[in-house]
Amino acid sequence: MKVAIIFGSKSDKDVMRGAADALKEFNIEYSTHILSAHRVPEKLLETLKNLESDGYECIIAGAGLAAHLPGVIASHTTLPVIGVPINASLNGLDSLFSIVQMPKSIPVATVGINNSYNAGMLAVQILSIKYPDLKKKLIEYRKNMKEKFINDNEKGVEL
Amino acid sequence: MKVAIIFGSKSDKDVMRGAADALKEFNIEYSTHILSAHRVPEKLLETLKNLESDGYECIIAGAGLAAHLPGVIASHTTLPVIGVPINASLNGLDSLFSIVQMPKSIPVATVGINNSYNAGMLAVQILSIKYPDLKKKLIEYRKNMKEKFINDNEKGVEL
Amino acid sequence: MKVAIIFGSKSDKDVMRGAADALKEFNIEYSTHILSAHRVPEKLLETLKNLESDGYECIIAGAGLAAHLPGVIASHTTLPVIGVPINASLNGLDSLFSIVQMPKSIPVATVGINNSYNAGMLAVQILSIKYPDLKKKLIEYRKNMKEKFINDNEKGVEL
Amino acid sequence: MKVAIIFGSKSDKDVMRGAADALKEFNIEYSTHILSAHRVPEKLLETLKNLESDGYECIIAGAGLAAHLPGVIASHTTLPVIGVPINASLNGLDSLFSIVQMPKSIPVATVGINNSYNAGMLAVQILSIKYPDLKKKLIEYRKNMKEKFINDNEKGVEL
Amino acid sequence: MKVAIIFGSKSDKDVMRGAADALKEFNIEYSTHILSAHRVPEKLLETLKNLESDGYECIIAGAGLAAHLPGVIASHTTLPVIGVPINASLNGLDSLFSIVQMPKSIPVATVGINNSYNAGMLAVQILSIKYPDLKKKLIEYRKNMKEKFINDNEKGVEL
Amino acid sequence: MKVAIIFGSKSDKDVMRGAADALKEFNIEYSTHILSAHRVPEKLLETLKNLESDGYECIIAGAGLAAHLPGVIASHTTLPVIGVPINASLNGLDSLFSIVQMPKSIPVATVGINNSYNAGMLAVQILSIKYPDLKKKLIEYRKNMKEKFINDNEKGVEL
Amino acid sequence: MKVAIIFGSKSDKDVMRGAADALKEFNIEYSTHILSAHRVPEKLLETLKNLESDGYECIIAGAGLAAHLPGVIASHTTLPVIGVPINASLNGLDSLFSIVQMPKSIPVATVGINNSYNAGMLAVQILSIKYPDLKKKLIEYRKNMKEKFINDNEKGVEL
Amino acid sequence: MKVAIIFGSKSDKDVMRGAADALKEFNIEYSTHILSAHRVPEKLLETLKNLESDGYECIIAGAGLAAHLPGVIASHTTLPVIGVPINASLNGLDSLFSIVQMPKSIPVATVGINNSYNAGMLAVQILSIKYPDLKKKLIEYRKNMKEKFINDNEKGVEL
Repeated sequence: MKVAIIFGSKSDKDVMRGAADALKEFNIEYSTHILSAHRVPEKLLETLKNLESDGYECIIAGAGLAAHLPGVIASHTTLPVIGVPINASLNGLDSLFSIVQMPKSIPVATVGINNSYNAGMLAVQILSIKYPDLKKKLIEYRKNMKEKFINDNEKGVEL
Repeated sequence: MKVAIIFGSKSDKDVMRGAADALKEFNIEYSTHILSAHRVPEKLLETLKNLESDGYECIIAGAGLAAHLPGVIASHTTLPVIGVPINASLNGLDSLFSIVQMPKSIPVATVGINNSYNAGMLAVQILSIKYPDLKKKLIEYRKNMKEKFINDNEKGVEL
Repeated sequence: MKVAIIFGSKSDKDVMRGAADALKEFNIEYSTHILSAHRVPEKLLETLKNLESDGYECIIAGAGLAAHLPGVIASHTTLPVIGVPINASLNGLDSLFSIVQMPKSIPVATVGINNSYNAGMLAVQILSIKYPDLKKKLIEYRKNMKEKFINDNEKGVEL
Repeated sequence: MKVAIIFGSKSDKDVMRGAADALKEFNIEYSTHILSAHRVPEKLLETLKNLESDGYECIIAGAGLAAHLPGVIASHTTLPVIGVPINASLNGLDSLFSIVQMPKSIPVATVGINNSYNAGMLAVQILSIKYPDLKKKLIEYRKNMKEKFINDNEKGVEL
Repeated sequence: MKVAIIFGSKSDKDVMRGAADALKEFNIEYSTHILSAHRVPEKLLETLKNLESDGYECIIAGAGLAAHLPGVIASHTTLPVIGVPINASLNGLDSLFSIVQMPKSIPVATVGINNSYNAGMLAVQILSIKYPDLKKKLIEYRKNMKEKFINDNEKGVEL
Repeated sequence: MKVAIIFGSKSDKDVMRGAADALKEFNIEYSTHILSAHRVPEKLLETLKNLESDGYECIIAGAGLAAHLPGVIASHTTLPVIGVPINASLNGLDSLFSIVQMPKSIPVATVGINNSYNAGMLAVQILSIKYPDLKKKLIEYRKNMKEKFINDNEKGVEL
Repeated sequence: MKVAIIFGSKSDKDVMRGAADALKEFNIEYSTHILSAHRVPEKLLETLKNLESDGYECIIAGAGLAAHLPGVIASHTTLPVIGVPINASLNGLDSLFSIVQMPKSIPVATVGINNSYNAGMLAVQILSIKYPDLKKKLIEYRKNMKEKFINDNEKGVEL
Repeated sequence: MKVAIIFGSKSDKDVMRGAADALKEFNIEYSTHILSAHRVPEKLLETLKNLESDGYECIIAGAGLAAHLPGVIASHTTLPVIGVPINASLNGLDSLFSIVQMPKSIPVATVGINNSYNAGMLAVQILSIKYPDLKKKLIEYRKNMKEKFINDNEKGVEL
């Protein structure tokens, strides 16, 4: 059960950390790859081939601006690709549109702008279809989240 | 291997047909449910409980305007939820934002505006992690898609 | 005469304080609830039932991003629900669209982005239909507001 | 129990009819006024004074473009004002912003673009705080809406 | 030859100063008025009547959010009204739309977001139709502006 | 008392007719010029020089897309230039931004998208500062507009 | 002197014809290729290699939605790539952003939405740097365009 | 082989430096000109004439707001003009639209918002059609860029 996290520059590290955080919470193995659809397209293709043969089951890809990375990855793999629009300009609208508006047949599962944690969680939900233990952990996680939320906020807040 | 397709009104039928088309192409069983997060919230919850116990593995939800349906479903299930923004106003921007910008921990896998076919394809890609036969079909589908594309367009086009 | 103020996280406190400020100005009792449509949906429903039976007459709900909270509340109560779009991304456009574009039959009375003070004032105006004393205070408030505005600005300003 | 529906031109009739439809459903008396904040400002003020003294309890105002009508009305009355953004340009964004983004202290309860039915429903919800019979009808209406929705959609739909 | 500069709050002073700067440059008399279309509508009308009888010939009005001030002024005067959209939210788009999209017959001469200097310059250009001395100064100003621009930038700039 | 109406293509005729309609209503002489800032820049400059020496006092310019025409005209004349954004793409946002967001010192008096009638009315208001007879007509026009509006709408409308 | 015109589907033919029209006007040889960055990525790379070795000097690429085609081409060639955003959704904003907002080092020369004629003209301008005969034709074309424009519009137009 | 870099104000220096950086990397001669389409239109035309006769082969023009500079330059030259939208308001959307949406026949090769480096790179790609040595350097640059990217990121990054 392995997930690959791919993005285009070390400077995206802070935005993309959330994906790793979510995966760590469920003890899911992941690897991180800095790759660019525009700068090193051949290296990207090579990496994608290795990911499939190495047993990876889900790919998370984050990009900003004209964010082609998730879509280009999706066109070279049949694994589910989760896209994280990174806000680098235009409040992230350019990136959101570049990721979510994929043409017929090649979807990218898009999450919210800069919301890489949700990309990690979506990978967990996808993998939990196959792995019953993960499903259990996920149900537990949700239960704990609710309890924690209720405990934290029971006393309300002074306005 | 079952997928549920949920949307809020019979009038969304034409936009949502694409999801069924994609699933049919892979012989994946699906059921269709017209349900509204705002009009019949209790019925929605009841349906969701049944879906999980009946062995459904993925949910596709389409909605327009303030499109809460996919997100509300996601908050009541641990199955992956795929959201289809339906263009009913503002070119579909209201719907896209209402679906993709989910808060931390409860993701919706969002596809393009009115692009329900891609929601179906994404369900296929997700399920194919678990079902090797489906994976094979998916690889075949991509191969055929490429061949068909090349054949159809080999002679180019007169401009 | 009681108003409930509901929002999804302690971090929204500063934006939502305006609602309490307006209600305080008219000595209207209010309670504050941190609840999430996505994280603790059952707790939300339970709270809503109690609010109605406890004699609450108006609900103010603030949320950011894919802001489903006001609409989900509106679908579970017949009390008027006032929605405050909170700017957490996209200048608050995602939140505004998610709140104001509700489907037919289930309205949310939406105020400006981050403008929780106006949510409080709208609650006052709504309640003043029923409570003649509040109506008198409201008319007084407006009169004072005008006088204060005129006094404060009588001498103009040097440009 | 009377509601005034105000808009700026006969050509807005079709968009604004929904407000009357909702009020009729609850046997709420309403009057219709064509008035413009820009073309007949004095007539507008005169009408507003009469509405208050004639016992009106809620005002619905629809406008397109630089939609000042609801806000100008709100500045001259302490009754709750419900604003309907009419799409006459820019997909209705100009109108939505002109209505919802009111300054501190003078709120307009804004509903969705062209969604005058929800303006009528919001008036019903507001009035039902004061009138127990209306509250009963409103609860009945919601119950019927749910039943009708479930009956209409029980058999699902063929995709 | 007098121009009135009207805006809604002392806090807009810094944005509106540009209008005064432009008028000062041409020795045009101006007065400053803090007035609100929503908070002190009667005071606004009273002021507008006085401006006309006192020989004012042009009005500059700045406002943010649902910026009704310039349009409301325009509906009560036949003097040319120049509107300055002030950025207080949504990058100023709400204000721009609320000012420029006026209905048929009641125009507001709109300048760029926060660009009050251009409002002052536009007043100068309008008045210079009537006042030949001002026209001469305006032509001189343009000539000087060009010369200064060329002198300042003659040596180019090191990149 | 002459006004020039300038636009870039015969196909803009229908949108720009409103400007002529308004001027005709006040018996203001006008001439129409099809000119392009991009296609015939020299011809445009030549025409502008003639307009000034021929006693024109106001210029109305309409353009779509990257609408440079009004701004380029404004940079070559000290007459007030009124800009009409024509909707040819992007709902007219491209044109609106290209016209209204002029840099410091060179304003264009912008009216609403496709609203050339208001451009004509603005020219009337500007000229009426100088021409007392026109001012009288303008006051009369407003009075008639109000009366007509009130007569037309006195009986209200059936919803 | 050869230009390649590449786009993703026969259905884009009508939008892309303008590019061919411009090239024909200058007798520039061109070929048309229907290729997709997402559906046939390998075929696209193969074609690009051939284009370079066959002496092509400029590539025009049109795409809609998440329009990756021009950027993906640009990452695989050092020829200048001209991108045409095709309006297939969101008024073409998704496509415009996906094409123009390329990351550092890999530019796409973007023209207006659906404006393929300008893509052809830009190719002509680029090639005319190298080919003096083409430069002459281009200067002639501009001269003729001006003369035609002036002749066509000399008599003005009746408004 | 000379490129001109033109922009409207010294304050744009930092945004425009990227263009020079790219040209320096390829030892391409460039000159910098501060010129404004609106403030010194005659000086701009004079400069453009000199550029052509002095053997310049490409022009890079940057501007913000109603960014007419690149389009006005394009209308006075047959050299390829590369436009850089500068973000001075509205996240740069006003500038982007004002530059990219040029009318038929007069294209501007537009790059991303504030992305002047890509304008420089596009100039390099355009010139490399004509100059084989530059072409070689460009291929080398791409190769180095890839190698550097791969080396820099080989070890991945810790999330």
